[in-house]
Amino acid sequence: MITLRPQDLPPPDAYRLLTSLVVPRPIAWVSSIGSDGSFNLAPFSFFNAVAGSPPTVMVSIGSRKGVPKDSLRNIRETGEFVVNIVSEEMLVAMNLTSKEYDYGVDEFKASGLESEPSVEVYPPRVKDAAAALECRATQFIPVEGSAYTLVLGQVLRYHMRDGLLRPNGLVDGQLLRPVSRLGGAEYAALGEVFELARPG
Amino acid sequence: MITLRPQDLPPPDAYRLLTSLVVPRPIAWVSSIGSDGSFNLAPFSFFNAVAGSPPTVMVSIGSRKGVPKDSLRNIRETGEFVVNIVSEEMLVAMNLTSKEYDYGVDEFKASGLESEPSVEVYPPRVKDAAAALECRATQFIPVEGSAYTLVLGQVLRYHMRDGLLRPNGLVDGQLLRPVSRLGGAEYAALGEVFELARPG
Repeated sequence: MITLRPQDLPPPDAYRLLTSLVVPRPIAWVSSIGSDGSFNLAPFSFFNAVAGSPPTVMVSIGSRKGVPKDSLRNIRETGEFVVNIVSEEMLVAMNLTSKEYDYGVDEFKASGLESEPSVEVYPPRVKDAAAALECRATQFIPVEGSAYTLVLGQVLRYHMRDGLLRPNGLVDGQLLRPVSRLGGAEYAALGEVFELARPG
Repeated sequence: MITLRPQDLPPPDAYRLLTSLVVPRPIAWVSSIGSDGSFNLAPFSFFNAVAGSPPTVMVSIGSRKGVPKDSLRNIRETGEFVVNIVSEEMLVAMNLTSKEYDYGVDEFKASGLESEPSVEVYPPRVKDAAAALECRATQFIPVEGSAYTLVLGQVLRYHMRDGLLRPNGLVDGQLLRPVSRLGGAEYAALGEVFELARPG
């Protein structure tokens, strides 16, 4: 075994090690609106569910040169966001929205994506995304000592493509075909699926 | 598209929908020690990295019938835990540790796993895990309205199997072969890996 401490690595390498070990990470493709009405769309992989009831998700959003990313600024201003789910056919479009545009640039337009109005919240969803979760922000928690803020959001409404939801109440992962994030510039498709009952 | 609100589903179905849409989830196989010295080992999939510097991870841990799970109790008592990474060959052993044992039961022993002392923290790591992150708990945050608590931890030391770390500073996902969590009783292997540069 190799053993090492993060402080023994240069900061970029420390980041690369962490993000290539905590894998695969699900991707939140977050749409939000600024107080000036501008649309924003950007992907985040420090993302997961954090509670089943009420259904709550977490996105950790960083700052760039001391300025919170536009998504965080928007969610603070409006208290709302949408998590769009990235399936394989949207990978290239999603990557286009990871470009660091200036505040106010509409990544939907810049990436040639259509938006669709949401039902419960003001930010629109990505029309062609296979699924979307409309969320109301419930908690903002700074990660101590870092430039990141955890945004927690309660899911108010789900959208999903016809045929994804199986009769047993589970979305079929092999039909959803979610893309996940690895380290560096790497993404991964879903591999073989195993079913393992929890021991009684 | 199908659209629905979580409150229109029975609670078990609402949980199944959330956890089958936020996928694939990385798995933290968490080892901890109780104040009585007992070892604990249990898997959690409400897990991710949340900050790059200092390297920080998050595990959201629930309660069972109003009592915090043993892992949460232990981490509160000692302020330390280890995240072991679950690769494919450890899937069956990991699943054995998901059984709801009584407090004080050593899941290492119950599952036939060897422990290995950690360097920076008291909880041991899983000897045969491909990688492990020794962590010091830094924040405990209740998820509002739920039975879950976010545990944030700073990574103090990494361990990884020889050969996993590539010269470019990234762990090779196809050698690590991490298992991820889907909804219901489903797990997934890593699929095809894509490399996509961020647009400039």
